[in-house]
This record gives sequence, C-alpha cells and structure tokens, in this order.
Amino acid sequence: MSHLEREALIESRIEALDLAPQLLITPGGLYASAVQDGLTLYLSGQVPRVGDSVPYVGRVGDEVSLEEGTKAARLCVSRLLGAIKESLGSYARVRRLCKMTVFAQAASPSALSAVAEAASTALEEVFSPSGSHARTTIGVALLPRNAPVEIELIVAVEPGGTN
Amino acid sequence: MSHLEREALIESRIEALDLAPQLLITPGGLYASAVQDGLTLYLSGQVPRVGDSVPYVGRVGDEVSLEEGTKAARLCVSRLLGAIKESLGSYARVRRLCKMTVFAQAASPSALSAVAEAASTALEEVFSPSGSHARTTIGVALLPRNAPVEIELIVAVEPGGTN
Amino acid sequence: MSHLEREALIESRIEALDLAPQLLITPGGLYASAVQDGLTLYLSGQVPRVGDSVPYVGRVGDEVSLEEGTKAARLCVSRLLGAIKESLGSYARVRRLCKMTVFAQAASPSALSAVAEAASTALEEVFSPSGSHARTTIGVALLPRNAPVEIELIVAVEPGGTN
Repeated sequence: MSHLEREALIESRIEALDLAPQLLITPGGLYASAVQDGLTLYLSGQVPRVGDSVPYVGRVGDEVSLEEGTKAARLCVSRLLGAIKESLGSYARVRRLCKMTVFAQAASPSALSAVAEAASTALEEVFSPSGSHARTTIGVALLPRNAPVEIELIVAVEPGGTN
Repeated sequence: MSHLEREALIESRIEALDLAPQLLITPGGLYASAVQDGLTLYLSGQVPRVGDSVPYVGRVGDEVSLEEGTKAARLCVSRLLGAIKESLGSYARVRRLCKMTVFAQAASPSALSAVAEAASTALEEVFSPSGSHARTTIGVALLPRNAPVEIELIVAVEPGGTN
Repeated sequence: MSHLEREALIESRIEALDLAPQLLITPGGLYASAVQDGLTLYLSGQVPRVGDSVPYVGRVGDEVSLEEGTKAARLCVSRLLGAIKESLGSYARVRRLCKMTVFAQAASPSALSAVAEAASTALEEVFSPSGSHARTTIGVALLPRNAPVEIELIVAVEPGGTN
C-alpha cells in the first residue's frame, strides 16, 4: 500500500469512527503538544477539550456517567490524532504505536478500565495493523480542568518521511 | 559470559528470589503486554495478578499490610519478567533497565516507598550488573482491579538478537 | 556557538533564575537518578528535597500555598538540573527536552496547572531554544515524603560527547 493509500485508509476510518481529529491543538500552557526525537514522537497528555471547553468534568461513575466517560476518552483520542497530524503531516507516517498511558478520575475499577478500553479500541482500529500498544491505566485524584480523563502516547515514526 | 550462561544466571536468580515469572501474560484489555520499537521495549503496567485473580486489593498500610504490599510489588515484577521473556525470548537480551514507574495506593509516604523499594530491589538483583534504573514513585487514587500497586518498565534490548 | 559558550550561557541563566542546581543527587532508594540509553536520558522523578529535607509537604492550595507550590516545582527543576549535570557532565550536551511529567498533590485544577507551569517556564528558559517539551500533568493522592510535587523528565542527548 502506498503512503497516500494508507493515509486515505486511516482518514476513512477516523471518519467512520466519528473521531473528528482536532487540528490546531493549542496546549494549555508553556509546552508543546508533541516533540519528535529521532523516530520517537512524544505526545503531551490530552484532556477531552473541544475548542476551549471541557464538556465533561469530574469522576467517571459519579458526576460523569460511564457512557460520557468513554466519550471523553474518545475526545482525548481525537486530540491525540490532531497532534499526530500536526506533528508528522500525515497519519501514514505513524510506524507503530508504542505506549499509551490513561489517567482517569474513576469511582470504581470497572469505570477506570472502561475508559481505557474505549481509547485502546479507537486507536487500535484507526492504526490497524500497527495500532497495538502497551498500556498503563491509573486512577488519579485530579486532572487539569477537572477533566475525567487524560491520555498520553508515545508513537514510532516512519524514517525518511517529510511533511 | 555467553548469552546462554547469562540466561542461566538470571534464571537461577529468579528462582532463588522466588519470583516465579508468569508466562502467557494475558493483558486485561485490548492492548499488548509489551511493544518493542528498535532497541527499546515498552512494558505495560502490571498489577499483581496471579492467573485471573488479584490476591491483594486496596490500600497498602490500610486493607493491605506493608508485608502484603511488598509481596504485591514482587508479583508485579514476576509479571514483568514473564512479559520480558515472552517478548524477547530470553532475559539475557535485556541490555539494561531504563525506567520503572511505580503507582501505588498507599496510606502513607513510608508505605509508598516500601512498595517501590521491594520492586527495585528485586529487579536490581535479577539483572545485576545491568539492573540499575531510573524510578518514579506515585501514590494514586485507584488502580485496575483495585490492585494496591501497578508497575511499568522501559527496557533496553541487546541488538542483533533473535528469539 | 561552541559547546563551552553554550555551557556558560546555560549556567548564567540558571544563576539568573536562582535555580541553584543540586549536585550529588542521592536517590531516596535503590535506584539511579538517571539512566542514559543511546541518546536518551531518563531522569528519575524528583521531589523538592533540599539536602535531606523536604521544605514543603502536603497539598498545593491547602497546607501548601500556591506560591510555595511553585517554589517546590522549581526545587524539583533544580534537582533535575543537578542530575543532568552529573549524568552528562555538562548542560550543553542536552540536545532537546522531550517529555516532562508533573505529578502534584493539588486542591484544585488551577493549583495543579500553576505548579506545572512554573516547572515548564523554568526549563524552557534554561534550555532555550531547545527547551520546548511535551508535558503531562496529573493530580495524585500522595507522593514520596508527602511532597506536594514530583517531576520526571526525558531528555535527548548530543551524540559524540564525552564527560
């Protein structure tokens, strides 16, 4: 499959999964949404911001329903996708996902796992067959903007590509 | 020391330390227990599961005693060892440990540190003289399966090896 | 700019910002303050220790004021700078900052962000124009020594340098 065909395939999946990547990611402070070093791309933790608002706040299984929590996780993925596109110029330059870390405010272990699974499922489908990733899932006390979930990602990049 | 001698040495230490590595690590969701990129192996966070059960649940220094907490940390190490063996085919392909992150539910700073030290001590002994590692220790609100501790690891791999 | 000129520039910034790097970093347990693998330097999480004491303990926005919280974050940066100098021999061997993770005990999202911003600002100024970094900010339940903040860092190293 050519680079352009792979790009079209990934974009069609993102659209089918309704993951609307958010471009022009503005970090919430004095940092970058992504830093590439060699063939490794480090993505900043993303909370489920839409523009400048965070539609879900608080704990999953409490103020935030389980369904809203999984939507919030998918919004984090949308922002990660936007940061990937902005950094690399194309999704097809993702060689492989390496490691995802999911931090969530959760009222129970099952709520915690549901949120992480929603993010893993989305990323796995978008980047298949290179979407497999290591994962750590952590229940936290608080997150920026009182978001229910924050997700960070380390991605391996294709060599030799240019934007 | 040859690769085979190194492998036998590490296996003898694992046995002497009673760390029984758990093979056939089944992740608790749609993710991989490890992803290798180049010479870097990213290991998913491991909770102290034995088969499908988690023998210790809750907070160290509270529902879980300090002694149980250190046992739980060693179970996490056993699972990390299993994931290393499954991914690389042999322990001797570990060139160096890079970074361990210990997340624990802990009732006090001293309980938190005791859990992390148990894991560091085990890994240091198993992989000596390549067992030195950077570490971050964090007290969390909740973990998957209500585990008292979850440990993730980044490992550097020997070049040129095959499984 | 030569390596020596770059080193002098960074040292003058550290002095101007009153960040007094702490050398002879002693880890609080059986681990290393930093591990270099290839051109990647993994720095252990640092709490705001000064010698063997932690001048601020508890939650930012609660026992610890916002101003003390940002001072604590800068102490973490001082320790990270000391660990960089000890590992690499010079600051000028830092090619780029990759990823910072800020863990804080915080009473509110704004306290959490203020602490993280203080650390980002300091690192950005010290290493400019290579100080840009990805960041994840997390509110935690507890930290070693009951510190209000703990900061870890991944740094890219110049090739070919020697100490």
